[in-house]
Amino acid sequence: MSDADIIADETLAPRLTLEEPLILQSGVSLSPVTIAYQTYGTLNDEKSNTVLVCHALTGDQYVAGIHPISGREGWWHHLVGPGKVIDTNRYFVIATNVLGGCMGSTGPKETNPKSGKPYGLDFPVFTIRDMVQAQARLLEQLGIEKVFCVTGGSMGAMQALEWAHRFPERITAAVPIAGSYRHSAQNIAFNEVGRQAIMADPDWRQGKFLEENTVPKRGLAVARMAAHVTYLSEPALHRKFGRKLQDRENLTYGFDAEFQVESYLRHQGYTFVDRFDANSYLYVTRAMDYFDLAEENGGNLVNAFKDTNVRFCLISFTSDWLFPTAESREIVHALNANAAKVSFVEVESDKGHDAFLLDEPEFHGALRGFLDGAARAIGLGEGARGESA
Amino acid sequence: MSDADIIADETLAPRLTLEEPLILQSGVSLSPVTIAYQTYGTLNDEKSNTVLVCHALTGDQYVAGIHPISGREGWWHHLVGPGKVIDTNRYFVIATNVLGGCMGSTGPKETNPKSGKPYGLDFPVFTIRDMVQAQARLLEQLGIEKVFCVTGGSMGAMQALEWAHRFPERITAAVPIAGSYRHSAQNIAFNEVGRQAIMADPDWRQGKFLEENTVPKRGLAVARMAAHVTYLSEPALHRKFGRKLQDRENLTYGFDAEFQVESYLRHQGYTFVDRFDANSYLYVTRAMDYFDLAEENGGNLVNAFKDTNVRFCLISFTSDWLFPTAESREIVHALNANAAKVSFVEVESDKGHDAFLLDEPEFHGALRGFLDGAARAIGLGEGARGESA
Repeated sequence: MSDADIIADETLAPRLTLEEPLILQSGVSLSPVTIAYQTYGTLNDEKSNTVLVCHALTGDQYVAGIHPISGREGWWHHLVGPGKVIDTNRYFVIATNVLGGCMGSTGPKETNPKSGKPYGLDFPVFTIRDMVQAQARLLEQLGIEKVFCVTGGSMGAMQALEWAHRFPERITAAVPIAGSYRHSAQNIAFNEVGRQAIMADPDWRQGKFLEENTVPKRGLAVARMAAHVTYLSEPALHRKFGRKLQDRENLTYGFDAEFQVESYLRHQGYTFVDRFDANSYLYVTRAMDYFDLAEENGGNLVNAFKDTNVRFCLISFTSDWLFPTAESREIVHALNANAAKVSFVEVESDKGHDAFLLDEPEFHGALRGFLDGAARAIGLGEGARGESA
Repeated sequence: MSDADIIADETLAPRLTLEEPLILQSGVSLSPVTIAYQTYGTLNDEKSNTVLVCHALTGDQYVAGIHPISGREGWWHHLVGPGKVIDTNRYFVIATNVLGGCMGSTGPKETNPKSGKPYGLDFPVFTIRDMVQAQARLLEQLGIEKVFCVTGGSMGAMQALEWAHRFPERITAAVPIAGSYRHSAQNIAFNEVGRQAIMADPDWRQGKFLEENTVPKRGLAVARMAAHVTYLSEPALHRKFGRKLQDRENLTYGFDAEFQVESYLRHQGYTFVDRFDANSYLYVTRAMDYFDLAEENGGNLVNAFKDTNVRFCLISFTSDWLFPTAESREIVHALNANAAKVSFVEVESDKGHDAFLLDEPEFHGALRGFLDGAARAIGLGEGARGESA
């Protein structure tokens, strides 16, 4: 299989509707629930080579190939593909659009069967646990009883941890990258700024913008800009832009995008609105805020992984100030207290939180090494490669 | 003089109109220019005991006493007053509202004499240098030829540095606190998020909101919330709020201010709009972005302080990630290269950038020690106390 073969086509993107209602953490019963997903590579006969890739806040199921909407490469194309670190000649990669996302899974922009209109704010608030329950049910319906590895960065790391907590017997390995076991006060604050920016936009229409044929573009763009600054590091911004002026030699004393960094941010904001639903942004950030594996386990993270047999690899980046290394280290300590199998790599990088999306050789090397070891441990050799791949 | 005597009253707040037009850094001639200011303590007969206090982005001239609009104590009441570190029994403290501010100085919310309407976006873009030029002219007109000390935090530190650069013969000492010699790419980015939030608000009306009797409250509140997160540190937010819920015992699964940190941020945002002009916010943040003492001096900060006789005290805070210690240290290095008299104190604090506004004993002790030494060096003893004070 070559990269060209896995060009994703939205019209072909598989979706699957869960057979039973999903009982959310809030107690609400949601039905029907459809989950959109993409697969890469081939499931082996033993059904033992699945890698579940979980996306971050604004990601989706298109991890490799060409994204059907943006026309750009999938968000983890550096890592996922034939011969790559997550080798689609060896592994069967599946990625879902999270519950509440806006790329085909049931969420606030989809039609509420009760009203025949888009859900908007009538969609129930959901959590990381709910996202993971939906993934688990999807895999069951696909006949995959055990997953080789669950991985993802940022919110994807939260899902990987939730999997290890909730379904330890259903996964062999978990690789949470640039993540945390609970959203910090600072991160809740940044998310709240984004939500307030969206809700401040009159075009948001109290969440009914789809019905009323508007789009809260300005608010969503501001939310994205604020978040985007937090994904980078000061050194990365300095190296990339510094105080360089945009298309001019001298200051013009005005409010145009005078500095390159302003122009870059505006571009980030205004291209984002074409691919993301403002209400999904509210709900998915809320799910991140609610995540707290310690609180849910009597205030002690150690209890979240009691006697776990899952093999863990934690990865953090030195310049990531949104999910700093200290938070991964706390998880490692909790796992050590359970005598779990844990690798931990803090990757030296000045690229900030976004490093998990970038071509970072030390990170990729560490992940490759861990996956090889875990695969060998369960007898998943190079020969696991599916014939039809 | 007691604290009660220095209750500020807006109707009594002095203002002074500069005798000549102000030629801005952009080349624009601005006239008339009125500067609002407050004084505390008494100018001695030698006119040698003036401390010029420069405010930060959203500060103003009310450093001590009760603020006439907010009804709260002045922003540096911990430091300025009888017997305090900046002792009004000893020093004559003067603080101006910066050029372009919104507390009485000429700025975008004041009337444009050419149109008879508020300036709005017709106000010329100005810089830190322009703010300092206006202060220097004000002091000249008040008959104060030499200032004992110029100090301030954040944007106030920029003004103190600009004073030392531009008028070294007119000041004895400079104390830039939690500042930098140039605004970083990350800080420009955060400012741009705030400006975009304001301009995204339809009530901003392309800057003409005063004429059209609206106020871009939502946009300005979002700008303030985004900025406010950057003024604190993660440890401070964690200690103050952590993940504590607001007035409830359990999650309610909604978009109300569920966490205390959200409630706090919303409060910060929505009280700010009552005291600050949205256009001033655009202009003053722009002035900060333009500040770069190295660039203006051939790309080398050393040239900004050639053979200076000014006594410097640089103060930074360990948890300030908006203006980190490294930036103060670069200034110290440039001053050392000029064999200048420099003290440098990095204060251990987990309170982030806002530490310069708070009751931080190590910071206050360092400032007191420096001021005492500098005062002794010019023969400004305890006896400098004005009789009428």
